[in-house]
Amino acid sequence: MIEQVQEKSGFIPNIFLGLAHRPDEFRSFFAYHDAILERKGNLTKADKEMIVVATSAANNCQYCVVAHGAILRIRAKNPLIADQVAVNYRSADLEPRQRAILDFALKIAKNAEEVEECDYEALETHGLDRDDIWDIGAISAFFALSNRMAHLMDLKPNPEFYTLGRG
Amino acid sequence: MIEQVQEKSGFIPNIFLGLAHRPDEFRSFFAYHDAILERKGNLTKADKEMIVVATSAANNCQYCVVAHGAILRIRAKNPLIADQVAVNYRSADLEPRQRAILDFALKIAKNAEEVEECDYEALETHGLDRDDIWDIGAISAFFALSNRMAHLMDLKPNPEFYTLGRG
Amino acid sequence: MIEQVQEKSGFIPNIFLGLAHRPDEFRSFFAYHDAILERKGNLTKADKEMIVVATSAANNCQYCVVAHGAILRIRAKNPLIADQVAVNYRSADLEPRQRAILDFALKIAKNAEEVEECDYEALETHGLDRDDIWDIGAISAFFALSNRMAHLMDLKPNPEFYTLGRG
Amino acid sequence: MIEQVQEKSGFIPNIFLGLAHRPDEFRSFFAYHDAILERKGNLTKADKEMIVVATSAANNCQYCVVAHGAILRIRAKNPLIADQVAVNYRSADLEPRQRAILDFALKIAKNAEEVEECDYEALETHGLDRDDIWDIGAISAFFALSNRMAHLMDLKPNPEFYTLGRG
Amino acid sequence: MIEQVQEKSGFIPNIFLGLAHRPDEFRSFFAYHDAILERKGNLTKADKEMIVVATSAANNCQYCVVAHGAILRIRAKNPLIADQVAVNYRSADLEPRQRAILDFALKIAKNAEEVEECDYEALETHGLDRDDIWDIGAISAFFALSNRMAHLMDLKPNPEFYTLGRG
Amino acid sequence: MIEQVQEKSGFIPNIFLGLAHRPDEFRSFFAYHDAILERKGNLTKADKEMIVVATSAANNCQYCVVAHGAILRIRAKNPLIADQVAVNYRSADLEPRQRAILDFALKIAKNAEEVEECDYEALETHGLDRDDIWDIGAISAFFALSNRMAHLMDLKPNPEFYTLGRG
Repeated sequence: MIEQVQEKSGFIPNIFLGLAHRPDEFRSFFAYHDAILERKGNLTKADKEMIVVATSAANNCQYCVVAHGAILRIRAKNPLIADQVAVNYRSADLEPRQRAILDFALKIAKNAEEVEECDYEALETHGLDRDDIWDIGAISAFFALSNRMAHLMDLKPNPEFYTLGRG
Repeated sequence: MIEQVQEKSGFIPNIFLGLAHRPDEFRSFFAYHDAILERKGNLTKADKEMIVVATSAANNCQYCVVAHGAILRIRAKNPLIADQVAVNYRSADLEPRQRAILDFALKIAKNAEEVEECDYEALETHGLDRDDIWDIGAISAFFALSNRMAHLMDLKPNPEFYTLGRG
Repeated sequence: MIEQVQEKSGFIPNIFLGLAHRPDEFRSFFAYHDAILERKGNLTKADKEMIVVATSAANNCQYCVVAHGAILRIRAKNPLIADQVAVNYRSADLEPRQRAILDFALKIAKNAEEVEECDYEALETHGLDRDDIWDIGAISAFFALSNRMAHLMDLKPNPEFYTLGRG
Repeated sequence: MIEQVQEKSGFIPNIFLGLAHRPDEFRSFFAYHDAILERKGNLTKADKEMIVVATSAANNCQYCVVAHGAILRIRAKNPLIADQVAVNYRSADLEPRQRAILDFALKIAKNAEEVEECDYEALETHGLDRDDIWDIGAISAFFALSNRMAHLMDLKPNPEFYTLGRG
Repeated sequence: MIEQVQEKSGFIPNIFLGLAHRPDEFRSFFAYHDAILERKGNLTKADKEMIVVATSAANNCQYCVVAHGAILRIRAKNPLIADQVAVNYRSADLEPRQRAILDFALKIAKNAEEVEECDYEALETHGLDRDDIWDIGAISAFFALSNRMAHLMDLKPNPEFYTLGRG
Repeated sequence: MIEQVQEKSGFIPNIFLGLAHRPDEFRSFFAYHDAILERKGNLTKADKEMIVVATSAANNCQYCVVAHGAILRIRAKNPLIADQVAVNYRSADLEPRQRAILDFALKIAKNAEEVEECDYEALETHGLDRDDIWDIGAISAFFALSNRMAHLMDLKPNPEFYTLGRG
């Protein structure tokens, strides 16, 4: 996915440079990233990017909100959705299924210790199975790491991300 | 200011429609808005819009972040600043004076009961006087109201605001 | 309303002095105040003052709790209600309808970004319509502004307010 | 102290009735209460009641704020101080020594796990010794218990407390 | 109970030394402690210690978590339960009745001002009566005090407590 | 490191089973884990485990607190330190350098968006360089992910971990 963005846009996302001096962490970071974002299941690519943007906004991560906001606009073919989800996903134009996905993703991001069986059941009513729910949680968990690393590095989004996909 | 945006862009911001069925509130809302945003002092128009965006983001207000984000990009002649301030003003490209202004504005937005004399003194070291500090606080306070009204109305930003000023 | 208090009590509430050096803000503040507190609907004057006291207490605003606590005692003809609502409205002597009004007012004061359709429906079961709910929200929003302005000015309640209406 | 209030006012504070059916708890509650509130040291009786009111307000305890608010007005010979301390002790008319006492009392009430040596040193600059600091902390801790018991019992303040000491 | 621990283990728990220089507080502290922990009702001794450990962990009290963790392991004849309850009682191996008890105890510890009739009813469905609920609340309230006193004294657990009851 | 624990103790930590059905995530999880926990620098193995225990406790993660608590006791050759750090690292028996490390790790765990240059400087006064600080942040960030995955899986610690290293 990152390669696609890179190819299409002609620039190297700063996260690649930020992690470059730690090759072991670089490799495992992107291997993990691809493992969860490229797995096939009932979540669409737009669903996944929506989780990234919503949880990264809750963690106030400038790099991830701006960079993945761009990818979300492209994946969802919707120039407005990323800013809506970033500011307040509760008032974004979402279907009930998407809203339920983000409610769970945010609970993992902010109060994972309170997740209970009923949270799983709520998602199952939207046709998501246990593997899909793992995916939602795993994306939220991976960006719990990414957002903190971006804060640690004071990582800045490439200027290109701000305008990509705005149509 | 709203008229200028309207004129330049050729659309009526949704806040005008949202308040239209309550003429008394409409009139006093815009009179108040203009009283604080158009007063002359040491704050620039860009400083003021920055306060609006930062505090509205802290209040998760979609309409105000997107609409005033557009105005901030135009006032500051900077296509990136609004998204930076909205996600995390602490990591935005700001001068120390701007950072101090936003620290105070956020304190009024979120913990106004803890404001003390030392907060004023911190701003005075940046060449701001008591009238300027009133302006910072008054803008933050006015958008405490506006953000809550926007949530109450479930007010949506006009699509035009998302792209204005992105250069 | 302010005039009535002033007339009855023979003193000028400090909020008038606090805003006097900013005539434009003074005018729009009181115009807004009257627009929402004097509008006719299903909320009684006591209901409205109860909203002011409960939300101002949640914002730790000394001036508004003490001044509007006095007005609440008078409007409700109840010398105990203001202190009860200020300390913990959940344990005040309230009817279910009043409790529901304050739950909504506090949500606007503290978590307005989480307001959803079900919050409206809860109030409608108590015979309140959409205009009444706007009033509740608008009063809470206006005092979000007022409380912050009072903190900014370090506004002190007139001594008279402490004892008014204690019977 | 309670006896003095009772004698002067001619009523039995509701806390006595609330605990009456549990004689062992009743006895140890009042023994503890007297042990900390009647110990001689550098804290005045007004200082102690101020701690009770400020921490009970932070715990939203209606009974303790109203009942001890009355006692504070009497001890401090100040009809306004209780309401000020209850709504926001930071904006109450306090000397620096009193402010420091309440800052420490509130830290014990709300974030006791963060108390450190520097908190003790801050109080020592105001002429308070380690025994006085124990008293401040012990009063805050005892009302952490009392406030929770009052919530458990849904204890209501006697009407007399609302007006006592208002002069 | 403390005597039993002391007898069995051959050491004096540090809380006895910590309070020794304040004989009045010492006496009322232990009288209160025994009044609530030794009262007969539907709560077992293990239930009571579970409340102590869960609420003390929520208050980050090292002494109470470690000392009462030991007692809980002994009372429950379960070497694992104390660490589970201390880190996250929601994921501990508990029966629904125990879970309901801890939910209520934690509400008293952290948000006592929000306790309402429905919280009582939830416990009654598990066969607990109003006296049992008082006990749950009273234990949580007493350790609200104890935890704060332990923080005030910077009280350290005796090394023996760390290993007692680990089987 | 995990292999060493496994070899010494003769059991397979449940995290291996929990991730086994997702081989790609399994591989990148442990590759990442080893990259940050095995890197050579100025942090000792005990320092690193202390970071894991303190941040996992702040995230209420039963598996990580119990499992890494065991490893910490072994690495630090101290049977008491893990429980102290888990309940309240501020009152644990730590050197100032360790305290500073945990303050930073907790800031990354809980408020990473507030990290600023002065946080780095505070650690440098203890002889830590920028690579060490990256390690502290990266361990905290990695366990932000691990803790959330453990909550997602409702992962239980192996019984062996509870007693390992208690001497």
